[in-house]
Amino acid sequence: MRAKGIHHLGVAVDDLDEAVDTYERLFGAEVEGRDTLESQGVEAVAVRMGQSRVELLASLGEDTPVGKFLAKRGPGMHHVAYEVDDLPQGLADLAGQGVHLIDDVPHRGLFGMQVAFVHPESVHGVLAELVTVG
Amino acid sequence: MRAKGIHHLGVAVDDLDEAVDTYERLFGAEVEGRDTLESQGVEAVAVRMGQSRVELLASLGEDTPVGKFLAKRGPGMHHVAYEVDDLPQGLADLAGQGVHLIDDVPHRGLFGMQVAFVHPESVHGVLAELVTVG
Repeated sequence: MRAKGIHHLGVAVDDLDEAVDTYERLFGAEVEGRDTLESQGVEAVAVRMGQSRVELLASLGEDTPVGKFLAKRGPGMHHVAYEVDDLPQGLADLAGQGVHLIDDVPHRGLFGMQVAFVHPESVHGVLAELVTVG
Repeated sequence: MRAKGIHHLGVAVDDLDEAVDTYERLFGAEVEGRDTLESQGVEAVAVRMGQSRVELLASLGEDTPVGKFLAKRGPGMHHVAYEVDDLPQGLADLAGQGVHLIDDVPHRGLFGMQVAFVHPESVHGVLAELVTVG
């Protein structure tokens, strides 16, 4: 598989509006959009700096992936998302290499994207997301 | 200050060559360069995926920033670097906002870049680096 690049950096935060304000003030970031994904218990604001994107992620409850992350490690970098052209083919490629996939098949993620997560144990401790756009 | 975008994602790893192999196999990454910064006790390989860059960081000893990070948290995302046009002006801007800077003045970082780090307590738990290129 050949990733096209980093689609976004996912950052877990305690307070979404405070974090947006910080990225605007410190880095001149511009808000691209806001979305909620009830199935994952997460609310997100995507901010842009040039061609780069950070997804600020707030938990909708303690018993959610981001809620558990915040309880265990506190606010900070949560995942990195790589953009790929063909997500099903990419997942098949990784599965064939014995990579530990959290999602065997793509599912609908934030902002309407098709996404799948790769377990950190296969990426040297980094939670990786694969996304296709449009 | 207006960041031009994410220059690289810094990832702490236990074994540099194993990590390079993983990023090549899983994401089709291409090695851009390798460098050592004795003053920080770090050896790095920069890999590219499209226009994006990941810096894989290995420690030259336990009593180094990356060595301490690995001992405390294990391998994983260490910092995110934002590219700026005018680093001294950017640091002055942040200092004026009361941001906690690890480096008040730029210093020479990996790959000959001028860099400065911003404390995670000012960026919602994310260690941020500012870099200027060339």
